[in-house]
Amino acid sequence: MKEVKVGVVVGSLRKDSYNLMAANALISVAPRNLKFEFIEIGNLELYNQDYDEKSPESYVAFREKVKSMDAILFVTPEYNRSVPGVLKNAIDIASRPWGQSVWGGKPAAIMSVTIGNVGAFGANHHLRQALMFLDMAVLAQPEAYISNAMSLFDASGKLVNEDTKAFFTNFMKAFADFIDYANQGLN
Amino acid sequence: MKEVKVGVVVGSLRKDSYNLMAANALISVAPRNLKFEFIEIGNLELYNQDYDEKSPESYVAFREKVKSMDAILFVTPEYNRSVPGVLKNAIDIASRPWGQSVWGGKPAAIMSVTIGNVGAFGANHHLRQALMFLDMAVLAQPEAYISNAMSLFDASGKLVNEDTKAFFTNFMKAFADFIDYANQGLN
Amino acid sequence: MKEVKVGVVVGSLRKDSYNLMAANALISVAPRNLKFEFIEIGNLELYNQDYDEKSPESYVAFREKVKSMDAILFVTPEYNRSVPGVLKNAIDIASRPWGQSVWGGKPAAIMSVTIGNVGAFGANHHLRQALMFLDMAVLAQPEAYISNAMSLFDASGKLVNEDTKAFFTNFMKAFADFIDYANQGLN
Amino acid sequence: MKEVKVGVVVGSLRKDSYNLMAANALISVAPRNLKFEFIEIGNLELYNQDYDEKSPESYVAFREKVKSMDAILFVTPEYNRSVPGVLKNAIDIASRPWGQSVWGGKPAAIMSVTIGNVGAFGANHHLRQALMFLDMAVLAQPEAYISNAMSLFDASGKLVNEDTKAFFTNFMKAFADFIDYANQGLN
Repeated sequence: MKEVKVGVVVGSLRKDSYNLMAANALISVAPRNLKFEFIEIGNLELYNQDYDEKSPESYVAFREKVKSMDAILFVTPEYNRSVPGVLKNAIDIASRPWGQSVWGGKPAAIMSVTIGNVGAFGANHHLRQALMFLDMAVLAQPEAYISNAMSLFDASGKLVNEDTKAFFTNFMKAFADFIDYANQGLN
Repeated sequence: MKEVKVGVVVGSLRKDSYNLMAANALISVAPRNLKFEFIEIGNLELYNQDYDEKSPESYVAFREKVKSMDAILFVTPEYNRSVPGVLKNAIDIASRPWGQSVWGGKPAAIMSVTIGNVGAFGANHHLRQALMFLDMAVLAQPEAYISNAMSLFDASGKLVNEDTKAFFTNFMKAFADFIDYANQGLN
Repeated sequence: MKEVKVGVVVGSLRKDSYNLMAANALISVAPRNLKFEFIEIGNLELYNQDYDEKSPESYVAFREKVKSMDAILFVTPEYNRSVPGVLKNAIDIASRPWGQSVWGGKPAAIMSVTIGNVGAFGANHHLRQALMFLDMAVLAQPEAYISNAMSLFDASGKLVNEDTKAFFTNFMKAFADFIDYANQGLN
Repeated sequence: MKEVKVGVVVGSLRKDSYNLMAANALISVAPRNLKFEFIEIGNLELYNQDYDEKSPESYVAFREKVKSMDAILFVTPEYNRSVPGVLKNAIDIASRPWGQSVWGGKPAAIMSVTIGNVGAFGANHHLRQALMFLDMAVLAQPEAYISNAMSLFDASGKLVNEDTKAFFTNFMKAFADFIDYANQGLN
């Protein structure tokens, strides 16, 4: 398969974030044609439409980085049964100014990760609703709802469980196939 | 009726925001026992759980302000079929640290406002899902989906249409009754 | 506390439904002022607005039964990440003809039950969105997402786990308090 | 383009349904390689998992019909801010028995139609959540939220407005292209 540049967006800014661990675990088991780059969202000012005429440096750089990617992997916790504000802010920024969204057409996949027990379902699906609007092609199956994240990683952030590792591997294989499918459709 | 302190949270930071106009219009027609105060959200750093131990000044002040209110009025646009990141960030901040949310129990109402034509429905309901989790009592009926906001205000930000004004008046009357109802239940 | 008539609506028609078991378990641990009656939904014809002028017997009886209740307990599985059609059909029927909904104002609680592992979250929240529109007062906290239902009951349908039983007990206590709160507000 | 068999599923059973009018209008302006067939859902018994071993005739015929289609067009009203029970019931039936769903992989498009003014947004997106789970490829843009349906059709059910007709034409063109895209990806 052709090399694919995948931007990784993590919905938590916490240094020891389980979502960051999960993202790293996904990268470690992904098909080798996928080349990953983390995209920083913690340095972005809160979106203000008044900035559309002259955007902060951080917006410009973020939009260019997103634009340069072939696909996007979202790994996100749930805050209050929805998408974290910090992640939604990033999505909003790269969707504007109106008509200049840089998300459109890119294949995407979502893994939601929580220390709770309902898989951050609320974040996963609110995010899907936004990505639908942005005309991204989002992997449907397999869905990835990761519960009880505290028990999944060892001290070095590696997955401790073979079943989880197999699921992560399968998920990334499906994402790679989906990117390939989406790109064939576009040719 | 008893005096009630209502915090007003506007989901857009734009200086000439239609949502800000709508909030001001709602205040202008509200029952006189409701006393309003705008709560600033544009100065809040992006939420990071690592701040829970020692929060930025802006978080502390915001949480105290929310806590001091008897009820909350949300007036919000829709960004990408969901809640603006800037608003969700504020909600997340005042919901943490875990177990110390200052939203719980407060009656709330939501008006969603858009220049488009489906009333910012996506923002309205994603916000409801978050407020449900935060154990707020949210006014159900009447719902308030405001479309075509560009045509609703004059140059000074006043409502130009009697029907709209009647709807806004009715909405705030319902909110005042709902606050009263919620408080009676709590006594 | 005053006696309260609670209608129980189960979202699955399956004879050995785990949702039915969960409903029975909830009833068995509920405060004694709550008096329960199951409301049948499996005998309802598919809703057709053309029936509004002259409704089938089953609709008439169902609407009267719902109307006679003081509160409603919904116990539902998730079908395809949303509310089962069979349950939504019942909700639609008792919401019509337009302006004659019999749901409005009634306190309600939702437990969602699945043999899967994300607590039927999708059904729970899609149902909440409908009940909001119907102006029902729906218990927010504690939420009740029940996963892995296969492991929760013994052969006679009784809960095998003390933690689950405590959670069910707590949930029904909260529902009884919520009904009391809602009714005080209404007086 | 290759001939494509498109099943049309209308979410309202009402004889003079605006959704049925909208479906017919969509068909009348569609690219000629799309061949349409309405799929009846009003004759389906309420889904009961106990039927999985021996399904009613209506289920068997419905599943075969869905299976025979290359793509699906959903045209649906909103009942109580969600998908009509009658439509969800049909979706549930063709998704079962477990592992034998006949929806998977089919490209789909959704138009939601209401006499109200927020475009049946709630039905549109709850339906999307179900179709995502069923691994259908659903057209993202353009979205189709049709409000004020009473004013759109003449006595014979034809669209009276050139703008609406242009939008319907554009929508079906986008659907045809999307089907083509999805099929290329699959080859």
